[in-house]
Amino acid sequence: MTPIDAAGPLRLHTYFRSSASWRVRIALGLKGVAAELVPHHLRLGQQRQADYLCINPQGLVPALEFPDGAVLIQSLAICEWLEETHPEPPLLPQDPILRARIRGFAQVIASDTHPVQNLKVLGRLRGLGLDEETVTAWARDVIAEGLEACQALLPAGQAGPFLFGPGPTLAEVCLTPQLGNARRFGVDLGPLDRLLAAEDACSRIEAFAAAAPARQPDAE
Amino acid sequence: MTPIDAAGPLRLHTYFRSSASWRVRIALGLKGVAAELVPHHLRLGQQRQADYLCINPQGLVPALEFPDGAVLIQSLAICEWLEETHPEPPLLPQDPILRARIRGFAQVIASDTHPVQNLKVLGRLRGLGLDEETVTAWARDVIAEGLEACQALLPAGQAGPFLFGPGPTLAEVCLTPQLGNARRFGVDLGPLDRLLAAEDACSRIEAFAAAAPARQPDAE
Repeated sequence: MTPIDAAGPLRLHTYFRSSASWRVRIALGLKGVAAELVPHHLRLGQQRQADYLCINPQGLVPALEFPDGAVLIQSLAICEWLEETHPEPPLLPQDPILRARIRGFAQVIASDTHPVQNLKVLGRLRGLGLDEETVTAWARDVIAEGLEACQALLPAGQAGPFLFGPGPTLAEVCLTPQLGNARRFGVDLGPLDRLLAAEDACSRIEAFAAAAPARQPDAE
Repeated sequence: MTPIDAAGPLRLHTYFRSSASWRVRIALGLKGVAAELVPHHLRLGQQRQADYLCINPQGLVPALEFPDGAVLIQSLAICEWLEETHPEPPLLPQDPILRARIRGFAQVIASDTHPVQNLKVLGRLRGLGLDEETVTAWARDVIAEGLEACQALLPAGQAGPFLFGPGPTLAEVCLTPQLGNARRFGVDLGPLDRLLAAEDACSRIEAFAAAAPARQPDAE
């Protein structure tokens, strides 16, 4: 394990509203790992400034920077690193099939939903001359479709309120920020009762509550 | 471990040109795990037929179906399951930081590149009335940007030809199909020499060669 306390704090490069950063804030909180937040204002393009591209050449948040200068990028890669180096409380259960189901659920959000509706893609759409109504409808449709698939993937007969067991997992780490995005774009959440029940249960857990955009130092 | 040989073969729901399916075909081959291929013609919309939605409610390939009816979806979740249940040869090294770097590289492709240029998203763009030239340019730009970030993420001083060590990892499992997509859309691969060197080395490994679209039963 990297001796993260040896030479200074971990630094999480973040933006209050970035749902990928939000995932990592939740995971750090659940694991009890402290990190200094370094905000980058995505709408002002600060993530594309030269000094940040030296940290993350992809020009996105989050990035987790270690005291020795090592940097990890991509929210799910950071979460898997946290799980491997700080096993308690677990974000994934022991059973390989259940782990894969939870990772599959997480990827529906982290691969097929959020990257297709994030700030960068919506900017590309605006760059093609599409009007704001069309751009918003794109985001709304992508999110609705992704979350409907998520709910359909849940195991039948699960007591709830959590998605895959007695407590939150990587599935909830991805779900709750995506529901935040869903509301911003006016998605009809009515049919997604099982997802909303999980979100409600998570909202009572301090790691989830403290990771919300409104509680970030760069919140507007 | 699920006794995958007990009651019949594993079935991989696939499409020859789907780069997410291609990743899983490579990983299965590297691990020496046999699976019966079940093709679904994405351009004909077979992945949205009711009988397939019962297998994968997301309506995408790949999906890995077990003899007992269990199904895993999402290529990276399936690869992680393979890694946990069939550790040799490893797709990820032991060191947690290096594992996270490789997973981060994989996610740049699997989250931020491929889902923004796949058949579904290009169909959405066409549905907005955009012409074919604009749609192709979108795919080309997204892929070029993703692959440039990938090359920038590679460790300095790595001898090569492989990306993160002496043999292929999850990084190459994601890279080689994405390079296939890059060529289809006319991306200029000239600056991506380190990626091309890794692809060339992989092409001499049977698991990579056998997973290529041209060698699939549903190839056109």
